[in-house]
Amino acid sequence: MSGRAKRIMLTVSYDGTAYAGWQRQVNAMSVQQRIEEALKSLTGENIVIVGASRTDAGVHALGQAAHFECASNILPDKYSFALNTRLPGDIRVIASKEVEPAFHARYGAAGKTYRYQIHNSPHASAMYRNHRAHVIPHLDAERMRTAARDIIGEHDFRAFAASGSEAKSTVRDIQFVSVQQHDELIEITVRGRSFLYNMVRILAGGLIYIGMGKLPQNALRVALQSGNRLDLGITAPAHGLTLVSVYYKEGEPPRELRSLGIR
Amino acid sequence: MSGRAKRIMLTVSYDGTAYAGWQRQVNAMSVQQRIEEALKSLTGENIVIVGASRTDAGVHALGQAAHFECASNILPDKYSFALNTRLPGDIRVIASKEVEPAFHARYGAAGKTYRYQIHNSPHASAMYRNHRAHVIPHLDAERMRTAARDIIGEHDFRAFAASGSEAKSTVRDIQFVSVQQHDELIEITVRGRSFLYNMVRILAGGLIYIGMGKLPQNALRVALQSGNRLDLGITAPAHGLTLVSVYYKEGEPPRELRSLGIR
Repeated sequence: MSGRAKRIMLTVSYDGTAYAGWQRQVNAMSVQQRIEEALKSLTGENIVIVGASRTDAGVHALGQAAHFECASNILPDKYSFALNTRLPGDIRVIASKEVEPAFHARYGAAGKTYRYQIHNSPHASAMYRNHRAHVIPHLDAERMRTAARDIIGEHDFRAFAASGSEAKSTVRDIQFVSVQQHDELIEITVRGRSFLYNMVRILAGGLIYIGMGKLPQNALRVALQSGNRLDLGITAPAHGLTLVSVYYKEGEPPRELRSLGIR
Repeated sequence: MSGRAKRIMLTVSYDGTAYAGWQRQVNAMSVQQRIEEALKSLTGENIVIVGASRTDAGVHALGQAAHFECASNILPDKYSFALNTRLPGDIRVIASKEVEPAFHARYGAAGKTYRYQIHNSPHASAMYRNHRAHVIPHLDAERMRTAARDIIGEHDFRAFAASGSEAKSTVRDIQFVSVQQHDELIEITVRGRSFLYNMVRILAGGLIYIGMGKLPQNALRVALQSGNRLDLGITAPAHGLTLVSVYYKEGEPPRELRSLGIR
């Protein structure tokens, strides 16, 4: 049974530990490939899906967005259940719906929220070893929180881009950033319209160095002004990073911001 | 180099996913065995460790306590670092110290805190699939919170004991219980002097049925009065359960309770 091709949007959650990232690769398993294989098994069609964010190897997602076209008559909101029976437990499609033919998960995104989790302790975390970056030296979370405010707004984030980044412009608009501490967990949450390649991990690395006292509290501002990647610290490891959500309508704060008390 | 035998206390964190539980078994790998093997590698001695709680297969720990005797001259606070280089990443010794010869991790414990995490959503969690039990029907967390208060204090918890439990008395004293909700996560935290076998999982199962409306809001009180296991619901799955901490001094609220605002 097939009808008019529909455009379907998926919301996808995954534990990135076992994957070479979102994007399909020749010699390594990706999240995209797993979902495309599940779609092939479900519909018989060779479907290519487009993700909002090409998350790196080891990076996780609570709310990645993706779209594809399909001629199947499966009810749009049933894709999530049907795909989950064909996917491993470290990938879950948590929602599916039909969208306008012009919808594009990447180019249509109005913003994304990422979080970076740090386990700040002399010893690594057993339970969260794949989800939180381990930092041994004591981090001053209050100093990190104050420092993070410097990136809010529209700036040239050239210093926050990995070398070899292909972006035409390095100007980005950061709408929100927070640093929260719960015992040994330090969590950086950042929302922006879009991000440069490795930008959140370079931000997290800079904040870690600021928290350790290896960089001054105004280091992010200095780097924004200099445009020099060397004015920041390390690129924080991939496994601490999670794509929390992608949103498509302006003026609608996503759930994770509402739960931080922002309306 | 060896001297007078010292008694050492370890605080141990582990992801229980890969283990048949805390306690050494003949045909399956346990957390105890892994630590004893690391101690053998470190000291050359055949050491038996005693854990405060014999957590089941799949159950996790953030702060399990254990003790052993050892003649080695290793500085007591260095065991954590030395053992971690000999342990897999899903077991971390997060603290070590010398204790009095009379110290006993199990019999000396003044109390334990457990938490039970539920992922309440139509779809399972990809990131937390090994740490949170998946419950599909909507749970009324407020109803669960009200119901949970019925177990505070000293009661006969016979209805909350797995059949075949060897405990002489089924009277237990629950000092604290909370039910917190953060989006799809519902977290039950419970502190008591000691617990019957499977007691927290039976409590979680009862609260899940109360939250679903399959049991009345006063079901825990009814079960305390009847002493009948059948008056409660399922035994909730092991992987949602985490031993948060074991404490040894009365009057000293453990960290997880301080962070809940209790002093």
